[in-house]
Amino acid sequence: MPKPNKTPVLFTSLSPALLNLYDITNSVVVVIDVLRATSTIATALYNGAKEIIPVDSVNDCIRIGKQMGAITAGERDGKVAEGLQYGNSPFEYPESFIKGKTLVLTTTNGTKLLHMALANGANEIITGSFANLDAVADFLIKKNKSVLLACAAWKDRINIEDMLFAGAVIDKVKSHFSINCDSSKIAEGLYNEASPDLFEFMKTKQASHYQRLSSYGLEKDIKHCLTANTASVLPIYKEGKLIQG
Amino acid sequence: MPKPNKTPVLFTSLSPALLNLYDITNSVVVVIDVLRATSTIATALYNGAKEIIPVDSVNDCIRIGKQMGAITAGERDGKVAEGLQYGNSPFEYPESFIKGKTLVLTTTNGTKLLHMALANGANEIITGSFANLDAVADFLIKKNKSVLLACAAWKDRINIEDMLFAGAVIDKVKSHFSINCDSSKIAEGLYNEASPDLFEFMKTKQASHYQRLSSYGLEKDIKHCLTANTASVLPIYKEGKLIQG
Repeated sequence: MPKPNKTPVLFTSLSPALLNLYDITNSVVVVIDVLRATSTIATALYNGAKEIIPVDSVNDCIRIGKQMGAITAGERDGKVAEGLQYGNSPFEYPESFIKGKTLVLTTTNGTKLLHMALANGANEIITGSFANLDAVADFLIKKNKSVLLACAAWKDRINIEDMLFAGAVIDKVKSHFSINCDSSKIAEGLYNEASPDLFEFMKTKQASHYQRLSSYGLEKDIKHCLTANTASVLPIYKEGKLIQG
Repeated sequence: MPKPNKTPVLFTSLSPALLNLYDITNSVVVVIDVLRATSTIATALYNGAKEIIPVDSVNDCIRIGKQMGAITAGERDGKVAEGLQYGNSPFEYPESFIKGKTLVLTTTNGTKLLHMALANGANEIITGSFANLDAVADFLIKKNKSVLLACAAWKDRINIEDMLFAGAVIDKVKSHFSINCDSSKIAEGLYNEASPDLFEFMKTKQASHYQRLSSYGLEKDIKHCLTANTASVLPIYKEGKLIQG
């Protein structure tokens, strides 16, 4: 007998501290860390990186980087972590630098969340950011499988930019999913309010991450990370690595 | 030497699972469970209840109710809990019934959060709902102390109505606080979008709790709980009891 044609569900987790509320064993999990891990991941893969190895700790990053002769990169609290070569800005990974190379990456929130999702039984993980918005939305529609949009937030505190991206995805895919999730509805509303000018919205609201990065002179990064479809790739997690899907 | 005149801070915790991110030992904690625990608490006190004893479990509710000869009330999953006399609707507590009496109350989310706040070191707890919006806002401004708006949510999942109330409070008190908290900013924006007609907003969004309560025929409760200042009292937690402040 054919299976009943059931509409898949979509939920949004606004903080890693809420991840365990959702059964993700049969869902596509979209890891979202707009400023800046998942934007940088999309950009590096789009510019030809062979693969990106997300790791939890700076020590692992250094160790694995040495073993593989790979580039080590990452940040803690928004700055290049001590002992690593590169940071977490998409601008550090142009094609001329990254093509064909392996990047070992650790970040404050994004890579941590990815490992939490694995620990919680996720078996299909992709990463999302405005840089690859359409690639993510198209993939989710095509898969026709339940989805968890998982925001990396900032040290478990909910942030505006990851919620904006969740809202942007929902805005694109909602007719394909059953959405009974207040967080998703709030995210979509927030995105609709902000969509005329995401950067201006972040600035006017004085979003916490806007303040943090702009105090380091990184408005350029914020603007870039809020621009849609600058890096149309689909980073998929397979056997410890993020590769082009 | 006089203390420096420091602006107090305000944060919003959108779920009990996020409560431990905030140091609440020197803050006023506002426990928010709009549908319906904190609306019912305000209503019962406004209508002359002597005191309300919030308890964690149905068993404690029955035991303490017997010991004190008090009214036992509460819900689990939106319905009157087995073994208790009354439910969690403000309409069950008119003056003719509740005046001078003690109410022992247990609810799915609100009373649980109150006990979590105590366990996390809170020493000043009040409860908030649209029913006593202005009383809460006036108290917070007068205290001139840091604030955590703590949403009870639904089994740790963020909900729209508690966030709306947090936003309503922020809208009233924001000029008196330093607010560097994305959750607070999102809540305020949500409230501003919804404020022309909160009930219509909940209905249009098909908020999860709107669906749950309206399926029990409780639209009347939802409407009442979204109406401002129907019960202008300030419930303060003192020595195990909520009393009029």
